[in-house]
Amino acid sequence: MTMNLGVTERLQPILDKVTKLIQEEVLDADIEFHREVGKDGNRFAMTQRQYEILEGLQAKAREQGLWNFWLTDSKRGYGLSTVEYAYLAEQMGWCVLGPQVFNCSAPDTGNMEVLERYGSEDHKKQWLEPLLESKIRSAYLMTEPDVASSDATNLKFSAVRDGDDWVFNGEKYWSSGAGDERCKVYILMAKTAVDEAPRHAQHSMFVVPADAPGIKILRAMTVFGHDDAPHGHMHIRFENVRVPASALLLGEGRGFEVSQGRLGPGRIHHCMRAIGQAERALKLMCERATSRTAFGRPLAKLGANYDIIADCRIGIEQARLLCLKAAWMMDQGDPHAAAPYISQIKVVAPNMALKVIDEAMQMFGGTGVSQDTPLADMYAQMRTLRFADGPDSVHRMQVARKELAGYR
Amino acid sequence: MTMNLGVTERLQPILDKVTKLIQEEVLDADIEFHREVGKDGNRFAMTQRQYEILEGLQAKAREQGLWNFWLTDSKRGYGLSTVEYAYLAEQMGWCVLGPQVFNCSAPDTGNMEVLERYGSEDHKKQWLEPLLESKIRSAYLMTEPDVASSDATNLKFSAVRDGDDWVFNGEKYWSSGAGDERCKVYILMAKTAVDEAPRHAQHSMFVVPADAPGIKILRAMTVFGHDDAPHGHMHIRFENVRVPASALLLGEGRGFEVSQGRLGPGRIHHCMRAIGQAERALKLMCERATSRTAFGRPLAKLGANYDIIADCRIGIEQARLLCLKAAWMMDQGDPHAAAPYISQIKVVAPNMALKVIDEAMQMFGGTGVSQDTPLADMYAQMRTLRFADGPDSVHRMQVARKELAGYR
Amino acid sequence: MTMNLGVTERLQPILDKVTKLIQEEVLDADIEFHREVGKDGNRFAMTQRQYEILEGLQAKAREQGLWNFWLTDSKRGYGLSTVEYAYLAEQMGWCVLGPQVFNCSAPDTGNMEVLERYGSEDHKKQWLEPLLESKIRSAYLMTEPDVASSDATNLKFSAVRDGDDWVFNGEKYWSSGAGDERCKVYILMAKTAVDEAPRHAQHSMFVVPADAPGIKILRAMTVFGHDDAPHGHMHIRFENVRVPASALLLGEGRGFEVSQGRLGPGRIHHCMRAIGQAERALKLMCERATSRTAFGRPLAKLGANYDIIADCRIGIEQARLLCLKAAWMMDQGDPHAAAPYISQIKVVAPNMALKVIDEAMQMFGGTGVSQDTPLADMYAQMRTLRFADGPDSVHRMQVARKELAGYR
Amino acid sequence: MTMNLGVTERLQPILDKVTKLIQEEVLDADIEFHREVGKDGNRFAMTQRQYEILEGLQAKAREQGLWNFWLTDSKRGYGLSTVEYAYLAEQMGWCVLGPQVFNCSAPDTGNMEVLERYGSEDHKKQWLEPLLESKIRSAYLMTEPDVASSDATNLKFSAVRDGDDWVFNGEKYWSSGAGDERCKVYILMAKTAVDEAPRHAQHSMFVVPADAPGIKILRAMTVFGHDDAPHGHMHIRFENVRVPASALLLGEGRGFEVSQGRLGPGRIHHCMRAIGQAERALKLMCERATSRTAFGRPLAKLGANYDIIADCRIGIEQARLLCLKAAWMMDQGDPHAAAPYISQIKVVAPNMALKVIDEAMQMFGGTGVSQDTPLADMYAQMRTLRFADGPDSVHRMQVARKELAGYR
Repeated sequence: MTMNLGVTERLQPILDKVTKLIQEEVLDADIEFHREVGKDGNRFAMTQRQYEILEGLQAKAREQGLWNFWLTDSKRGYGLSTVEYAYLAEQMGWCVLGPQVFNCSAPDTGNMEVLERYGSEDHKKQWLEPLLESKIRSAYLMTEPDVASSDATNLKFSAVRDGDDWVFNGEKYWSSGAGDERCKVYILMAKTAVDEAPRHAQHSMFVVPADAPGIKILRAMTVFGHDDAPHGHMHIRFENVRVPASALLLGEGRGFEVSQGRLGPGRIHHCMRAIGQAERALKLMCERATSRTAFGRPLAKLGANYDIIADCRIGIEQARLLCLKAAWMMDQGDPHAAAPYISQIKVVAPNMALKVIDEAMQMFGGTGVSQDTPLADMYAQMRTLRFADGPDSVHRMQVARKELAGYR
Repeated sequence: MTMNLGVTERLQPILDKVTKLIQEEVLDADIEFHREVGKDGNRFAMTQRQYEILEGLQAKAREQGLWNFWLTDSKRGYGLSTVEYAYLAEQMGWCVLGPQVFNCSAPDTGNMEVLERYGSEDHKKQWLEPLLESKIRSAYLMTEPDVASSDATNLKFSAVRDGDDWVFNGEKYWSSGAGDERCKVYILMAKTAVDEAPRHAQHSMFVVPADAPGIKILRAMTVFGHDDAPHGHMHIRFENVRVPASALLLGEGRGFEVSQGRLGPGRIHHCMRAIGQAERALKLMCERATSRTAFGRPLAKLGANYDIIADCRIGIEQARLLCLKAAWMMDQGDPHAAAPYISQIKVVAPNMALKVIDEAMQMFGGTGVSQDTPLADMYAQMRTLRFADGPDSVHRMQVARKELAGYR
Repeated sequence: MTMNLGVTERLQPILDKVTKLIQEEVLDADIEFHREVGKDGNRFAMTQRQYEILEGLQAKAREQGLWNFWLTDSKRGYGLSTVEYAYLAEQMGWCVLGPQVFNCSAPDTGNMEVLERYGSEDHKKQWLEPLLESKIRSAYLMTEPDVASSDATNLKFSAVRDGDDWVFNGEKYWSSGAGDERCKVYILMAKTAVDEAPRHAQHSMFVVPADAPGIKILRAMTVFGHDDAPHGHMHIRFENVRVPASALLLGEGRGFEVSQGRLGPGRIHHCMRAIGQAERALKLMCERATSRTAFGRPLAKLGANYDIIADCRIGIEQARLLCLKAAWMMDQGDPHAAAPYISQIKVVAPNMALKVIDEAMQMFGGTGVSQDTPLADMYAQMRTLRFADGPDSVHRMQVARKELAGYR
Repeated sequence: MTMNLGVTERLQPILDKVTKLIQEEVLDADIEFHREVGKDGNRFAMTQRQYEILEGLQAKAREQGLWNFWLTDSKRGYGLSTVEYAYLAEQMGWCVLGPQVFNCSAPDTGNMEVLERYGSEDHKKQWLEPLLESKIRSAYLMTEPDVASSDATNLKFSAVRDGDDWVFNGEKYWSSGAGDERCKVYILMAKTAVDEAPRHAQHSMFVVPADAPGIKILRAMTVFGHDDAPHGHMHIRFENVRVPASALLLGEGRGFEVSQGRLGPGRIHHCMRAIGQAERALKLMCERATSRTAFGRPLAKLGANYDIIADCRIGIEQARLLCLKAAWMMDQGDPHAAAPYISQIKVVAPNMALKVIDEAMQMFGGTGVSQDTPLADMYAQMRTLRFADGPDSVHRMQVARKELAGYR
């Protein structure tokens, strides 16, 4: 059976163009973009300059037809395979702005997939169309502050049917992207059944306008003290928020079906972006190692640095190949068979990237954790990926279960 | 030979009082103190409330005679051994404010030691006395942005003799504590000889008023985006800063003698504080593990969590004992013999603490890296300790050199 | 409270003598001794030369009064503390013959303790006296082939009361030392109660002559293919083996009381010997690193070797201190309080020693795993210590339980 | 570019047949074969039964046309790609006898490649033909006892031209397979130039009959005490061994050219066999984890065992993919570009396999290191792969060099 994990012929020119734009323009623009944060006083309101930067890059991308790559199986998109998309995700992942430039950002891509697959025509018109144009953004509201959300059956945010409406009460947090002033719509999981119902049929998925009355953004969660503005990981309270019955996706009690379909590819994309981050960190590390001198020799030649660099390269190669295989498994059309591979890579890629970034920071000394390199921000963002979309331990549990299934 | 690494009889009541104050008052006060940062607009100017908090705690400490423990071999102090001090440092290390409450903060303790040992009577009167009273604070200016400062012979910040003055030019950064508005004096290393002089005799140590004309604080270095206000790790420029000849400590070209004497105990204290941090992280982890439920069981009973908790406890115990042994070696009066033990613990303690804090963060999920626990701040501060006072790699090199000295 | 972990004044001369004998004579003798194995055709029958070597060394030890150090709290012995004994155990642990030379070998020491504490006068006369003189040896029969013996309540080897006799049926394996032709007595745990009895009161401990009719040694268990002759880890079958009622120690159903008392110190001794093994491996590693050249430099200066050597030294120091603390805890007289420390060190010491030995093997290349250095044998023996007296995982469980006991 | 790392259509039936034979017959036969060792008194002389076992299996393989798969680019063979061969190597690697059954054993495959590529017609007739038929076996003599052979330019075994002959003097060891009575020919590297010649042109490669006068097999090197009979890793002395000029391969001073061509594929094959070993160990581990009970639960459910199993699976997947990529790089025809990938996998695969085997041993407790499972033998063999064909450190150095080549 052919398992082509290479760059296909049709992908190569796209990948080249994306890479060129990222390396030659987006990396620098990303630094300027983030220096702008808060200049107008509100860290979550984008400045004029930020809009210029982002829209300028998006225009360049669209001119070249580099847009919405994630539409893997749609007639409207490239029809790329997950493997092909993975290569692009790695490149786009080099910096925060990367995916936005090509309208391939999380959580928008996953949310757009949900809307495309499960949304009504109205949903598509109202939310999917502007999302496809990057005119608005979206958030995915899952995690809750009061329960161990790694076991999503614990979620207790409540949706109650009241006549033709659903009424929401509860709190969500770590709602990534909900800080962005452009964020106009939420995909939200709520508990719609009593505790006695089957555990995986108690929750439902909804489409909710971000400006519905009763929604209050309480604060931005920070990561190592950083608020990730203007994106933001928000803590949000819902008090008697009312939406029409049509807000329900797929059907009552079928929330997990929606989330499972959404999370698989999303995790692979996260992981491939993590590999891009690791490549960037290794590049920075090698530049430092060859340009800085101590004890009369370049850092590269001191102590264990050769071994450290080698181990980073080896870690990256292995993680990339495993991502590509997980992507290829997705492409075979059996999500159940692909699931343990996705769990594997979800454990491997963030931990590998953290290791590489950490070693790069150490090679830089104090500079490495400071504002003078992107490494500290990279580390902080990557650290959240060890529990976003499920903590390491839950994914290891899935891998082990699959492994042991054949015995006894 | 007696190697008593236990809590001595005279230490026990002191340790009990310190522990009580830390656990019952300082931990909470520390949280309030840091929430105050920036409320008046300037993150490096302390608010009225911050002064109240700190001075209130200091008053409580002084009432009980809990002050300046670090004066290990002075007539004015407790005459504690390094081992005894180490136990106190661990307790004080549970939070940032801890050491300040008892006037045992870095870098003041080391700077006070330098002034006591090498300062003139004028230095003592002008700087040591108010430092002993916590009326002012100090900074230690060593690291430079343009050279690999892990090899301190690289330092090139210049001091030139001009008549009765020394004239300084250059930049220092990661000058910890220099952000604090109470910081009034710097201990500063400068290059006073030509490149051709013996490598370890090119540098000298000076006492410099923080308000000398020509000194400009450029910015605060950040750690994972955090400025550590109001303490601060500052980037400072010196342009033709002029001080009288009396600013020189010990003698021209003898800067490394001063720094070596200063760094040994300082490193042990840092490490013992790191162990306090690790203990706090483990406590938080165990609280979470026993109070949170997923998949129908407390987190403690899931996956590898028992093993993780056990490994954290084992790591802490081993690191503490090694610290105590290094402290005991210091107490034997032969710094040369103690040096490799200090290098050992300097590698072990921060890495161990980072591991424990990281596992604690993971046990908390998203909450663990957020503002809702102290773990993220703890991690950020601890991360700098892997290069502050010498990076891991340099300390490993010292340990290996010592080990191999007996062969060939 | 004084926690003296140093070498006491009274210990120093004893330690010096033991060290001298080990380093100057026993290490070489050990190599010759093991080369003799099997020369007469039977690997478990000692040759004349083997007796000469061992008895010659024992005579030298006894001449200097270096004998039975393990009698820590007996009037007949040195009355050494566990801490003091630990230092000796480390030295004796450098090679296999080391402990035998001073009659401090496992499993004899533990068995002698059992006999001294719980044995009748007859037991003492028949077995303890010759053991104290090293005229005979002993084995401890616990582990069974058919059950997970890490959970000792699983043990099912049966002892049934029949009139004035006990009748044994079942199999034991990994009975260390039972291969030695000098082994004359077994301490044996058997199940004496029905499954319905309280889980920790179903087993009893017995003293059994090795030549009782019905006992058959089936084979020697091997470790990486090595039979550890003439000591041997034997697989033994009991068929209707009959012993008098007096063979029962302490009381029916009290087997675990006996084993717990026996295992605590035994584990510490094992761990301290492991540290001796690690020191020996590090010494060999450093000798190789400084005497062998590749790519134009001594191995020590290549790649990560400085870091490897440093990490080995750091690992040894930490493990030794933790052992000493566990020993000191034992000396405080509260085995319950000491237990988690013993579990800690039981995890740490063998893993650390394996790591050091493995790195030493790697520094030697092919020679390191071959008969040309003692490293391979050291590794094989040490590997068994990760499950002998309880696998790592069980000890980690104990440590975590203790840690969590204070919460909820 | 297509990078097909999957099982091709033409490979699938071959792979199925090989897998079936290995799993259904060879695994058991391998155990019986090795129990036969030494039954006739000489561990290196094969018994009648051993010949029966091996030849019986070989006959079954040949009947199905499963023979000499390694002939990757020969008209006489399958013309398999390296990727395809890699899948077969993994299966054959499950046990020692596996590769022999299909005439794909090291070091024969590499030696046959050398003879095919560089041998004269006479060499081919005399040695290659019977090797292709498995009528004789061969050894590769590289490593020497007196020099750090990891830096092969150190090798000093001497070949001196004397008239029409070459005369050899020196010692080789770790000559794997030279113990086998069927081993009739050596490929041997010798120093033919003075020290002053260019470092990589001082050595030459020769074909030497194993029975040439003056060759003496001194002993078998052991691995953890095991002699690996009847294969053997022999220590061999050459005293004035004389061979005709025609014994020289390729040309004087071109030894490294021959060895480099030989080692690349050989290393990949070793690594894929290592993955087979790891799969076997994981299978044994899972069987044990699900069939053994302690503390009232199957071992799988205790402690960190789920995590351990998951990490083993993840390690295997990553290593296999990296092997396949290295194989694919080889297939692209640029050995220079493939080299760093081969170095990567040479670091990864043995370490990963050792980790998995070690965890499996631990899951089995004492049984795991004993003769009752194949794990201990597997571990011992695998351990040598961390220096055979270059130690980890040299391969890491190669990887780092390649990584840093693009900087400065």
